[in-house]
Amino acid sequence: MSHTGTLNYQWAFSLINHFALQGVSQAVISPGSRSTALALACEKHPDITTWIQIDERSAGFFALGLAQRQQLPVILICTSGSAVTHWFPAVVEASHSYTPLLLLSADRPQQLQNCGANQTIDQRSLFSSHVRSTLLIEEASEILLNNAYLKQISTQAYAQSVQHKPGPVHINIPFKEPLLPKRFTREDLNHYINLLGTQLLAKSKSKTIKSADSAPKAAVSTLSISQVRLELLTETINSGNGLIICGRLSSREQTGLYELLFQLTKKLNCPALIDPLSNLRFIQRGFTPQGSSHFVYNYDHFLKQHHITGHTPLKPDWIIRLGQFPTSKNLMLYLQSLNSHTILISSYGDKLDPLHKANTQIHCSPVQFCKQILPTSVRTQPENWLNSWQKLEQASETKIAQSLTGMDQSTLFEGHVIDTLLKSIPDNSFIFSGNSMPIRDFDTFITRRSTHNKSIDIYANRGVSGIDGNLSTFLGLLADQADKDKQYAVALVGDLTFYHDMNGLLMCKKLSAMGYTATIIVINNNGGGIFNYLPQQQLNDFDKLWNTATDLDFQYSARLYGLNYLKIENQHDLENKLADVFLQTGIQLVEVIIHQKTSVECHANI
Amino acid sequence: MSHTGTLNYQWAFSLINHFALQGVSQAVISPGSRSTALALACEKHPDITTWIQIDERSAGFFALGLAQRQQLPVILICTSGSAVTHWFPAVVEASHSYTPLLLLSADRPQQLQNCGANQTIDQRSLFSSHVRSTLLIEEASEILLNNAYLKQISTQAYAQSVQHKPGPVHINIPFKEPLLPKRFTREDLNHYINLLGTQLLAKSKSKTIKSADSAPKAAVSTLSISQVRLELLTETINSGNGLIICGRLSSREQTGLYELLFQLTKKLNCPALIDPLSNLRFIQRGFTPQGSSHFVYNYDHFLKQHHITGHTPLKPDWIIRLGQFPTSKNLMLYLQSLNSHTILISSYGDKLDPLHKANTQIHCSPVQFCKQILPTSVRTQPENWLNSWQKLEQASETKIAQSLTGMDQSTLFEGHVIDTLLKSIPDNSFIFSGNSMPIRDFDTFITRRSTHNKSIDIYANRGVSGIDGNLSTFLGLLADQADKDKQYAVALVGDLTFYHDMNGLLMCKKLSAMGYTATIIVINNNGGGIFNYLPQQQLNDFDKLWNTATDLDFQYSARLYGLNYLKIENQHDLENKLADVFLQTGIQLVEVIIHQKTSVECHANI
Repeated sequence: MSHTGTLNYQWAFSLINHFALQGVSQAVISPGSRSTALALACEKHPDITTWIQIDERSAGFFALGLAQRQQLPVILICTSGSAVTHWFPAVVEASHSYTPLLLLSADRPQQLQNCGANQTIDQRSLFSSHVRSTLLIEEASEILLNNAYLKQISTQAYAQSVQHKPGPVHINIPFKEPLLPKRFTREDLNHYINLLGTQLLAKSKSKTIKSADSAPKAAVSTLSISQVRLELLTETINSGNGLIICGRLSSREQTGLYELLFQLTKKLNCPALIDPLSNLRFIQRGFTPQGSSHFVYNYDHFLKQHHITGHTPLKPDWIIRLGQFPTSKNLMLYLQSLNSHTILISSYGDKLDPLHKANTQIHCSPVQFCKQILPTSVRTQPENWLNSWQKLEQASETKIAQSLTGMDQSTLFEGHVIDTLLKSIPDNSFIFSGNSMPIRDFDTFITRRSTHNKSIDIYANRGVSGIDGNLSTFLGLLADQADKDKQYAVALVGDLTFYHDMNGLLMCKKLSAMGYTATIIVINNNGGGIFNYLPQQQLNDFDKLWNTATDLDFQYSARLYGLNYLKIENQHDLENKLADVFLQTGIQLVEVIIHQKTSVECHANI
Repeated sequence: MSHTGTLNYQWAFSLINHFALQGVSQAVISPGSRSTALALACEKHPDITTWIQIDERSAGFFALGLAQRQQLPVILICTSGSAVTHWFPAVVEASHSYTPLLLLSADRPQQLQNCGANQTIDQRSLFSSHVRSTLLIEEASEILLNNAYLKQISTQAYAQSVQHKPGPVHINIPFKEPLLPKRFTREDLNHYINLLGTQLLAKSKSKTIKSADSAPKAAVSTLSISQVRLELLTETINSGNGLIICGRLSSREQTGLYELLFQLTKKLNCPALIDPLSNLRFIQRGFTPQGSSHFVYNYDHFLKQHHITGHTPLKPDWIIRLGQFPTSKNLMLYLQSLNSHTILISSYGDKLDPLHKANTQIHCSPVQFCKQILPTSVRTQPENWLNSWQKLEQASETKIAQSLTGMDQSTLFEGHVIDTLLKSIPDNSFIFSGNSMPIRDFDTFITRRSTHNKSIDIYANRGVSGIDGNLSTFLGLLADQADKDKQYAVALVGDLTFYHDMNGLLMCKKLSAMGYTATIIVINNNGGGIFNYLPQQQLNDFDKLWNTATDLDFQYSARLYGLNYLKIENQHDLENKLADVFLQTGIQLVEVIIHQKTSVECHANI
């Protein structure tokens, strides 16, 4: 009989190897004892890059960011007990943002359950309905090691995490003591590899971090629209004036969409309202020099005017929605007022329709939708329909630009930060946006003009739109860049979001040491401005219960985690110093001080 | 029909009021929008004290600490979405440490489920088997408001959280928009209160923080031992030499136990091995001037010697175990080697017996056990049995004291910290111990001599023994002190534990402003020394995978959160400066730098 520690290691190595053979290349590990064999197996596997993050909560979000860039599942590893539960916030976000994760929790064996053993909890259904599935693995055994059991488990887990509805999969793995192989040498490793009899992707330990482009994407089947439905669709489209609305898209949905939607809106002569998180507002490198004139950006602004003035807005006969429900509250109010025939294109089969307006839901990707509609007999819509939208767009764009430049130099608010950020950021960058105010401000202030014909990707945790784990997600997105200066990376978050995931900054030292550069901009209005826009603001208890000022001076966070630090308090410094920050090496923290009162006034003015 | 916002508020106020009527007095709130009515109801209720903590994870542990001191359920409130999942680590600890919590999560109404609404997730079974129950409340309605529905829910939730097996209860509460009452004045409040027709515990808003002593304890029924079982028990006790082992006890189990166990061990002339977390090592104020000579403290030390030398240790004929399985690994190895007849006294019906040694499990509290055994015909055991244990105890005590004083002044390790802490800490204090090394060191270094006849309570999160949420738990324990200088409070944690819950320190500013004083001692050995004692230490990958140095300089944490800061790097400073720290106002952070190599050597020497 094999030594239990050796068997544990072979067991873990075999499982990790099966994942590696399917293309998994990244593992995020929170140190612990029970998970020893899993951690070692990842570290020793030639095709797995390991990342260490002590706080499992931040580890979960870091893996989420990595997986979103990779469009491949990322492995998470932690020890038994409460450690596993810290993944939950990231699991929920992964589930709702369709991000594949492989959650490998170590556990104590069955005999130590329900008898007061240390760090032992019921791990069988920790994530309830928020994982695609939970797989409970048997304890290591020689018989199962030598048949296809672990291969079956890993194939199943991989498929469930990347197939029609990508998301997290929980794999619980009990380990008996001793947890470690007796000896551990290079020869042992080779011996185990041979013993497993499996083919390794690489023969040498050449751990390079694969970029989003070079890594193999998860190969998934494509759902296509049936001929009957396609005919009904073209009939609807030809029945009157229509509108395409494109909300947040997952990385997988974005791939290849820009060009197809560009062609489709041109063929239909139809406006498309473009949420910043669809990543269709910025031009695509090598495709269009100017972007599409059919894409509408400033609807949040002009629909708000309609809303305020009670002016009857444009009424489409049909609406086709792609992706998640859009960010803009004014667009939501507009859609609520309409009775247009609404078709929901749902990549993952979910009904992303909080207004309950969809007449039809079609289960296919936006790319597939465009591909199938383009060759049909759909007709071009009248020029005046598109023109009406374009006129509103242009008026809003001018108004926004004028408002920003027209303000007193001493005034500083979020609009200036975004405008200057977009002006100063290098072409070919990505931006991670916090929830609450930042994403709403991006929605308002990314105009056609402010994109400066740059190619920029926008990310945000909009699955469940939490203020949690944002810094770690950003660092995970950053970490997946083989060529570290390929895309410059900026995060823009509020102070509460920054506070909530400060522990995630522990990864910065490692990333800096590895040569990564990035900037985190924290908009510090001391307590989360969003509640200023909600009715709670009228209550006497507002300051205590909602306007939760942290009174934190983030320069100390910067010093704690070894970030370069800059504080900006006026427009002049913003315009003169921000571009320089992007030239620095390492990871920068820029704290922009904004007064809540000023911010509310400026937003109201625009 | 009532305005929905008004109805929401009445709904929330009624629920909170029913909890207040049962004795609940503390609510820990993480700000959010959907939870508005709940937060307001707590804030406006005359008998509820509210605490604000932005990070829900830290909020959960803060409530855990409060509830442990109060021995009463504490309310947690947060908004919908991923926010709720951050409670999970504290929920798991509360479940395993038998701590009552009322988890009130706001939710979106049913019609917004499963349709892509923002911040909306399936909240129905988030905590799976780790809550005593999950209660899904209906949306606010006038009909249900005016009957006993919410009273029924709150009575049920309260009972499930405090009865035979105390623990967390999840109550999920959907709210429709608008979330707020139209107007909100003092008259409205009175109107609502009258409308509810319920009796308030206090007529005026006199929010004082009730201390553990003054607060009403949850009234629970007592399980007693049947006559048949009692006879079998006394038979066992009279059958030979026995040993009582007392592990960690919950606050409720501790109440009244010291005196009874003192009497019982005296009557039986029987040794009792006392885990530091039973809170029986320190004398009880007003009861004994010297403590019990039957209580054995240094078993970890002398059992280790036996383990090393292979010397045959003392063999009891029977063992009675009270509370959780003890902390000491050497005691565990000793118990594993025995075949004594073992009786497990289980307060909450759980089989806390990871060695599977219990012959009988009796469902009653240690207090009840003592009360029923004392009047029986149990016989006194032979003097030499007790003496053998006392001799070992004394030899170990002398050896430990000599080792500590005999070391080079330049040497500094955990033993010195604990010895000096116990010497300098004011009488009538409480200490919160981190897991991993600190609790093991307390186990070793709290000798009869080092207690200095002080009365000190020791707390730790030993339900699942995580490194998570420790600072927040400590601050929660601290917060429940009406008379703020009644008990001095010290936390002793390692650097990884400190790092994991730094966000919890946000509460320090408020506590300092309210006049609380306390000291947090962080033993910084840069990476968690415990793995040095595990076999992983032999691996080449040890430093990367387990010895996870954070390289953080905690003086910046102190500055970020407004703590006074002192760094200690040698025995001289420890002995001369620590006592002064305890005289300062506000919250102090003392960072003690210990070198892992020194620490391992010193532990080995002793």
